[in-house]
Amino acid sequence: MAIASAPVAANGGRQSSMSLVQQLSKDHDLVLRTFRILIADLCQQFGGGHPGGAIGMAAIGVALWRYVMRYAPHNPDYFNRDRFVLSNGHTCLFQYCFLHLTGYKAMTFEQLKSYHSERVDALCPGHPEIEHEGIEVTTGPLGQGVANAVGLAMATKNLAATYNRSGYEVVSNHTWCMVGDACLQEGVALEAISFAGHLKLNNLTVIYDNNQITCDGSVDLTNTEDVNAKMRACGWDVIDVEDGCYDVEGIVRALEQARTSQEKPTFINIRTVIGLGSHVAGTAEAHGAAFGASNVAEMKKANGFSPDEFFVIGETVRDFFHDLPAGGEGYVREWNELVKGYTAEYPELGEEFQRRVRGELPANWKDLMPSSFPEKPTASRTSSGLVFNPIAKEIASFMVGTADLSPSVNMIWPGKVDFQHPELRTTCGINGNYTGGHIHYGVREHAMCAISNGLAAFAPNTIIPVTSSFFMFYLYAAPAVRMGALQRLQVIHAATHDSIGMGEDGPTHQPIELASLYRAMPNLLYIRPGDSEETAGAWIAAIEAKTTSTIISTSRHALPQLKQTRREGVSRGAYVLEGAVNAAVTLIGVGAELSFALDVAKRLQDSRGIIARVVSFPCQRLFEQQSVEYKRGVLQRHRGIPAVVIEPYAPNGWERYADAGICLRRFGHSLPGKAAYKFFGYDVDVMTGKVGDYLEKLERDEFLRREFVDL
Amino acid sequence: MAIASAPVAANGGRQSSMSLVQQLSKDHDLVLRTFRILIADLCQQFGGGHPGGAIGMAAIGVALWRYVMRYAPHNPDYFNRDRFVLSNGHTCLFQYCFLHLTGYKAMTFEQLKSYHSERVDALCPGHPEIEHEGIEVTTGPLGQGVANAVGLAMATKNLAATYNRSGYEVVSNHTWCMVGDACLQEGVALEAISFAGHLKLNNLTVIYDNNQITCDGSVDLTNTEDVNAKMRACGWDVIDVEDGCYDVEGIVRALEQARTSQEKPTFINIRTVIGLGSHVAGTAEAHGAAFGASNVAEMKKANGFSPDEFFVIGETVRDFFHDLPAGGEGYVREWNELVKGYTAEYPELGEEFQRRVRGELPANWKDLMPSSFPEKPTASRTSSGLVFNPIAKEIASFMVGTADLSPSVNMIWPGKVDFQHPELRTTCGINGNYTGGHIHYGVREHAMCAISNGLAAFAPNTIIPVTSSFFMFYLYAAPAVRMGALQRLQVIHAATHDSIGMGEDGPTHQPIELASLYRAMPNLLYIRPGDSEETAGAWIAAIEAKTTSTIISTSRHALPQLKQTRREGVSRGAYVLEGAVNAAVTLIGVGAELSFALDVAKRLQDSRGIIARVVSFPCQRLFEQQSVEYKRGVLQRHRGIPAVVIEPYAPNGWERYADAGICLRRFGHSLPGKAAYKFFGYDVDVMTGKVGDYLEKLERDEFLRREFVDL
Repeated sequence: MAIASAPVAANGGRQSSMSLVQQLSKDHDLVLRTFRILIADLCQQFGGGHPGGAIGMAAIGVALWRYVMRYAPHNPDYFNRDRFVLSNGHTCLFQYCFLHLTGYKAMTFEQLKSYHSERVDALCPGHPEIEHEGIEVTTGPLGQGVANAVGLAMATKNLAATYNRSGYEVVSNHTWCMVGDACLQEGVALEAISFAGHLKLNNLTVIYDNNQITCDGSVDLTNTEDVNAKMRACGWDVIDVEDGCYDVEGIVRALEQARTSQEKPTFINIRTVIGLGSHVAGTAEAHGAAFGASNVAEMKKANGFSPDEFFVIGETVRDFFHDLPAGGEGYVREWNELVKGYTAEYPELGEEFQRRVRGELPANWKDLMPSSFPEKPTASRTSSGLVFNPIAKEIASFMVGTADLSPSVNMIWPGKVDFQHPELRTTCGINGNYTGGHIHYGVREHAMCAISNGLAAFAPNTIIPVTSSFFMFYLYAAPAVRMGALQRLQVIHAATHDSIGMGEDGPTHQPIELASLYRAMPNLLYIRPGDSEETAGAWIAAIEAKTTSTIISTSRHALPQLKQTRREGVSRGAYVLEGAVNAAVTLIGVGAELSFALDVAKRLQDSRGIIARVVSFPCQRLFEQQSVEYKRGVLQRHRGIPAVVIEPYAPNGWERYADAGICLRRFGHSLPGKAAYKFFGYDVDVMTGKVGDYLEKLERDEFLRREFVDL
Repeated sequence: MAIASAPVAANGGRQSSMSLVQQLSKDHDLVLRTFRILIADLCQQFGGGHPGGAIGMAAIGVALWRYVMRYAPHNPDYFNRDRFVLSNGHTCLFQYCFLHLTGYKAMTFEQLKSYHSERVDALCPGHPEIEHEGIEVTTGPLGQGVANAVGLAMATKNLAATYNRSGYEVVSNHTWCMVGDACLQEGVALEAISFAGHLKLNNLTVIYDNNQITCDGSVDLTNTEDVNAKMRACGWDVIDVEDGCYDVEGIVRALEQARTSQEKPTFINIRTVIGLGSHVAGTAEAHGAAFGASNVAEMKKANGFSPDEFFVIGETVRDFFHDLPAGGEGYVREWNELVKGYTAEYPELGEEFQRRVRGELPANWKDLMPSSFPEKPTASRTSSGLVFNPIAKEIASFMVGTADLSPSVNMIWPGKVDFQHPELRTTCGINGNYTGGHIHYGVREHAMCAISNGLAAFAPNTIIPVTSSFFMFYLYAAPAVRMGALQRLQVIHAATHDSIGMGEDGPTHQPIELASLYRAMPNLLYIRPGDSEETAGAWIAAIEAKTTSTIISTSRHALPQLKQTRREGVSRGAYVLEGAVNAAVTLIGVGAELSFALDVAKRLQDSRGIIARVVSFPCQRLFEQQSVEYKRGVLQRHRGIPAVVIEPYAPNGWERYADAGICLRRFGHSLPGKAAYKFFGYDVDVMTGKVGDYLEKLERDEFLRREFVDL
């Protein structure tokens, strides 16, 4: 155990990486061979998985975890740790093995061997999952990780610019993102790469496992671009490493150069061989299947291992990594000391910083919202600004961005500072710096939301990202919205221009069916507030949902301000706006069309003498969480009162709560908002007629009550 | 009418563009001024719309429609016409005005003035729509048009390579795509650009309206990349035009150079000024709002127009364009002659070509499918290949691509030829040429589907594009899938690895909620076949749906082959698998879990003596299209028989057809397929217990029948 006694915890900062590399390099060959065979064994065990990429990246992993990254295996959530993102998440064994070797406690040898097993509480799922120690973000859907890494690097920049003071770099970590050939083909990554170059995120390094193989074969089947030139054009520094299979020292040198980059993010293009050492090395066959028992045996023999031994990690290899936990504890101690001194010298700032670290908001956040609103008709996108901008102005936790729709989404507050490189000088004269809490994402909806996942994943609730765009374009961003919900990240999406009321832009912009997706998506609140008061309720629900993503879906056009609405009602998903004894029908109103339900109720009474109850139903998910008693009390369908929902969306999903719907089952139409409503029959008389006729038909057709009826 | 008598129909090919430019250039200034003021008037009329971009692009439009593009205003669908795509679709007035000026019959002056009016049958919606004369694809959601244009150019390459013979270039058109700053930020465009460069589509030109303004302000707020260098890195030729506001000749020269490009697609970077001549020229204010009456008046005065006259198109301007219809008819005549000669010289090929032009399949296409299948358990993704590959092999209409999942989706047939540049030599040795009907799209799901829309839009059903990927990744592609459905394009998406049965890849890959989107999406069939026989039915439905897009959603894992399934049943959406007199419950089985319903029915009978009917329900949309009688006959809920659906998806939407569901309301879990089913309670005993208990509870709780119950 020669190494154990030497003071070589480079990971703890006591020695330069390069001198440590030279000291330990004698063991590299054995470590790499051991790692590669271990991966082959882990896949062979249950006859599945992705061995090739992980094997090809072995030397990159050694460079990162042994020499370059700053982290603390026994304090996985140490705040100022480097963040590592495995964007090519199918190579998860790469990360799992290094988590095991470097001493993460949860990743026992037993757990490591659970990859692809039937163990229900395994820490080695088919793609890395944020719930587990040492995993910063869940990846798998390709390209997402690149954007997540951009968000993580932005979080560092923002927190550092806001809180660091001379001598007190309380936030100074680097973000490392591993990508494969596939990630670099995905649009979301390309958007994020362009944006990161613009922002000059010199604390971000993308490491390209350039093995030129994807599932279909060689990458040149589909991609023959000059990737280095493309990255440079996007504002990145590029470093080439020719031998990524064995040259640990070369990789460490490139990584260290990237960490100290002054001006730009760095792209390290490392040539590797997928499945190195296996019989399918360098081919697509190495990508997504176990090698077969006899091939693994051959591989072992060729590498000096016994074909009869499995999962072999020799003592030398264990020793090679053994002092990393201790080194990590050194980081933790140093940082704790630093924060202590910082808080002593800057008490107020220190307090705020520690509150941010704990993921807490100032206690008074809710008081920053208006307690009432003007009575004049107001677009709910405007209400959104009235409600939230005072909060965004006061509380630095919120980082609020837009996909190039600043003039439309109303998420700008007086004195807002843009998150920008401080030296940027724009043509339009709007500049900023890294303390800024407002982000111009450009026309990059998908990257906006994936980057926001990274901002949120930096530490729980330290940053609460807010995105904004037209609701329809959250279809572009849907894969990232999903990843936010899946990871239990608090990300708030301010989606405006919902429903056909948005008008002239036509069917490409009218989100007929999109709510069906988001209402079905687990751990996501899709909220359509009906006026300013309900918009306040929507924001309260979103801000209180610490482990849930939310879409607040608002109107382009002015909505009447209703006397009956209550912000508290929104938190229960649905509530009674107008009760009535002996009602013949319950009308369900939603969001921008909430007032239609009230209007129809009145007209039913006036013109036909029919008594209607009215329920406001801004959020299905929140309603589902209520007790059976509450739900039955609101809807009263159990008493035999039929419910009719009014919403110009596809009805799918409303069948749970209503017996009939005035909904849409076709795409929209380009007409001014009011004309569009009329065109589709959202006219008080027409709707009243439909409801009245339906109630009559119900009397005549005994079967009708058992079916959802499209009116 | 000096021009009228001169033989200057350059558009008809009788004179070189450049000499025609010199002849007509004296009128350019007036034409441009007239055009710009017309746009300002059209927006001012109803106080809305997007004037700035259209105004800035005036000279580009003159260059395209007057001098360069080959088209026939009186035969808008002339087969060999150049295709023009307005990817920055919000500038639609640009196109509408040129359609009017160049003589498209439908685009009357009256119609042109309907932009943003309440006219229900207006031809000037807020974004171009494919239904209308002269519009090749519906655009609006940014970036889509770029990918559509790539598809259109690929269609030309494929048809030309397949059908052209020496002396008979029956397909030779060029595709022109107009983009703004925003399109070039969108991931879908970046994916498509990379792919087009790889394919060396020298028949494609992207024209960049480089005005450096988007909604938020100047582009450098968010994008400071070197776009020309980026395009070159992606394999494009780049031409700069410095003065895009006035230099019609320079633009024509660039366009003509692009048309004759030998090796690569061309990117023409044209500097323009948004809202040129208005008081907000060069600023974001010019983008998305009318200028205001007094500002328009000022603009008119400054341009030598009377502020009191509106929608002025003087005779000189009309004359400038007047001979284009005649020139277009020349193209049509020439092409008709060409095809006549071609068919005479190559009768068989000519016949086939004309069948393709008519959008017809060989009459025997259905016979190419197997009439029966092996009895052994088969993954429905495998069934998909068994059913469709014989068709793809024989019928050139199908262009079948994959987003880098060839080994998984089983869409490869013996002797398949890849669609590739013929000189490409790949590392893995799989090459191809432009006649190929198989496409390696790379890991670019979104571009794959948007490009497929372009392939389909080339001419109705001439090419039927088929895409393939894991179902979950059709969330990446969803905006393009939507655009296909909206445009009534026949695009078939072969989505594999649906449901939690796909296993170890875990929750990022398990599509719990995605079906809710696609079942709600208008004009889309989402079909989950239960075995090979139903997979045949799914493909028949998809191929027969000439104006509808389809997703065929198949399993990764082997499914039992059921005796009761019928391909004809799929076409009705749902059908009875097992009827029964005196049934207590109807079990609805779907797709990969269809056999579960049969198993539970049997177990209910065996263990509890409960008689169950079983319905196979592969497609909600097809079922909706059936008569009330058929629907009630299948479900029998009107007879009081409760229905229980079994599907490991979010239940949203099933509430219409079922009273209870064994569905999922959370994200999935990484476990091998069988273990995942078990983990979530999809075990025959567990499900049988749930259904039995539910039926008992129904007896006790009178209200329960009125609510959808999650079992």
